[in-house]
Amino acid sequence: MVNYFSSDFKLGILGGGQLGKMLLTETQKFDIYTCVLDAAKDAPCANICDEFHVGSLLDFDTVYNFGKQVNTLTIEIENVNVDALEKLEHEGIKVYPSSKTIRIIQNKAKQKLFYVDHNIPTAEFSRFAYSDEIKTAINHESIGFPFVWKSAQFGYDGTGVKIVRTQADLDTLPNVECITEKLIPFKNELAVIVSRNVNGDLKTYPVVEMEFHPEANQVEYVICPARISEDVTKKAEGIALKVAEAFKHVGLLAVELFLTENDEILVNEVAPRPHNSGHYSIEASYTSQFEQHIRAILNLPLGDTSSKVCGVMVNLVGDENYTGNVVYENMESILKMDGVTPHIYGKKVTKPFRKMGHVTIVHKDINEARKVAETVKNTIRVISS
Amino acid sequence: MVNYFSSDFKLGILGGGQLGKMLLTETQKFDIYTCVLDAAKDAPCANICDEFHVGSLLDFDTVYNFGKQVNTLTIEIENVNVDALEKLEHEGIKVYPSSKTIRIIQNKAKQKLFYVDHNIPTAEFSRFAYSDEIKTAINHESIGFPFVWKSAQFGYDGTGVKIVRTQADLDTLPNVECITEKLIPFKNELAVIVSRNVNGDLKTYPVVEMEFHPEANQVEYVICPARISEDVTKKAEGIALKVAEAFKHVGLLAVELFLTENDEILVNEVAPRPHNSGHYSIEASYTSQFEQHIRAILNLPLGDTSSKVCGVMVNLVGDENYTGNVVYENMESILKMDGVTPHIYGKKVTKPFRKMGHVTIVHKDINEARKVAETVKNTIRVISS
Repeated sequence: MVNYFSSDFKLGILGGGQLGKMLLTETQKFDIYTCVLDAAKDAPCANICDEFHVGSLLDFDTVYNFGKQVNTLTIEIENVNVDALEKLEHEGIKVYPSSKTIRIIQNKAKQKLFYVDHNIPTAEFSRFAYSDEIKTAINHESIGFPFVWKSAQFGYDGTGVKIVRTQADLDTLPNVECITEKLIPFKNELAVIVSRNVNGDLKTYPVVEMEFHPEANQVEYVICPARISEDVTKKAEGIALKVAEAFKHVGLLAVELFLTENDEILVNEVAPRPHNSGHYSIEASYTSQFEQHIRAILNLPLGDTSSKVCGVMVNLVGDENYTGNVVYENMESILKMDGVTPHIYGKKVTKPFRKMGHVTIVHKDINEARKVAETVKNTIRVISS
Repeated sequence: MVNYFSSDFKLGILGGGQLGKMLLTETQKFDIYTCVLDAAKDAPCANICDEFHVGSLLDFDTVYNFGKQVNTLTIEIENVNVDALEKLEHEGIKVYPSSKTIRIIQNKAKQKLFYVDHNIPTAEFSRFAYSDEIKTAINHESIGFPFVWKSAQFGYDGTGVKIVRTQADLDTLPNVECITEKLIPFKNELAVIVSRNVNGDLKTYPVVEMEFHPEANQVEYVICPARISEDVTKKAEGIALKVAEAFKHVGLLAVELFLTENDEILVNEVAPRPHNSGHYSIEASYTSQFEQHIRAILNLPLGDTSSKVCGVMVNLVGDENYTGNVVYENMESILKMDGVTPHIYGKKVTKPFRKMGHVTIVHKDINEARKVAETVKNTIRVISS
């Protein structure tokens, strides 16, 4: 086998943001040589990898030329040039996740059709080449208000997702390829991270519970383990495994799920990489999701996904009233609390709801952890100087 | 207060080896701007800090000029130019640990006298300006064989320490300033890491048990918690705290202790920095020793030093029969074992007994962890290609 733990092996990462940064913690631990590509010269990964390359993740030549220099290529964000990845695969570069998987996931319409084709439960949807066509569908009463509108391409962190209740809402939508989904009243949003290595070995992380920020449509708390019944847990894990196997995925696959009011589980969407819903694992799990992603794409044995302690994660997002050089107000107060670990991503400028970091709270008792998490949330503020 | 979490603050680290590398994992997590000085351009820290400077840690001008650019300066190794640190302190740079403390610890004779002055129990010793003078002492029967010889200066990782049993052994000693110690039959070697911040807040890590490699005089296993009585634990913690307070130490102080056959505790020596005996804390503790060192020197609240799970650490030292480009044999076999985390320091060349990395084994049951640690030890080999 290749000796990953020597400089004759190079790992490439597309994207130098916070997920890349947390992956680098693990490559540093294993002394794996890393090359990172990002469009921003001051990206969080810029100073902490072996080679940092500045360039667009969406430009064919940039991604192709970057990929040619490495042995194995992975991503920390899905919005990359997939044609370049496909060419690299044909030329023998190991690309995980595969271009095929990323191509499906990049487009929400394709992603939904994939679920249908593989008998994976998901919310009813309609597909439109342009948002304009939704109006016709409404006139023919094939769909009705309210519904969820999702841009097919480049949705990320809740951008490109809107709840449409009225004709007026409808008129504000960009006229792009999109899907509409039935607005499902759900009890709970859950997520399961599945890890699968090149051999096809599979391990799932515990089911987590997600609480969303009402306005920003971003996760506010991730709670591990989810406070749900054994039956629901089994059902959620089963569906997540089915999705990972359908993709023949290599690496981590974060599967976001809705738990409906009648305990039905529907796949919302997936991310083929380490995910916000797994950040708690750095402090709480025997193997962090970032280490597990590295193990999976290098075809190493998968680590233990169980937890040492319970964990709750709080996202640190920019206060909606501040834009400018970031300041973390009351950082010292949260550092006084036991089991509290802040992660600061290193973005210089804060904007309303921008993900600037996260805080993990661990405790032997999940309810205690959840209480402390609320105090953390109400104490620290991400503002500007 | 200074906003550590912004680029207007610079932390300097003297030494870019494995301890520096593990400190950088924490500064990355907190997004603290770091400058590292090391003599080796390919030191483990070279590519993972904000500014890497190449130069001698023992040269006054190099250390002084490096230190002038930072706000707070710390060390990962004691063998640095202390005069430069003293000048930097006078010019308002925060230096933790202080030049005074490092000066005492750098010289084993001074260190032993410090313990005597502060009524800290330590093995009986004699001090010599030159090893030659030991012969006279033997002729006058003020000391006798066997005894432990320690070079006063620049002892590190067991270098500069010899057990002298015969006149022949005595003749092989370098003729330098040194101390001799009574050879004490001890049951056990223990260590306690004490953390103290600028405010003087104190927290101790649990007492750990150390097992040494017979030939290399390097730690082979570190076991947390130590399998000792409650009384011995209390006594060890009390003595460690007394040492840290005597130094008015800021940062981490690793206190190495002997447990004698009659359950007496003697201070062997101390290290004013993160220490091999605390590596287990990365996986096992609520707050790793490296994060705690950063918290202490930045005068942040100290983190919880208790453990999530039990931990055993195994040093990965170069096989005595190999010198050359390092290869980690059977790495995949140990990655198959639950709760096993290798740390590879990134030194390109292995030498007999050179510290190349370590492996942490965590488990809810300390005896299980110890068993797995032995399997790890007997499985992985550090050889050359």
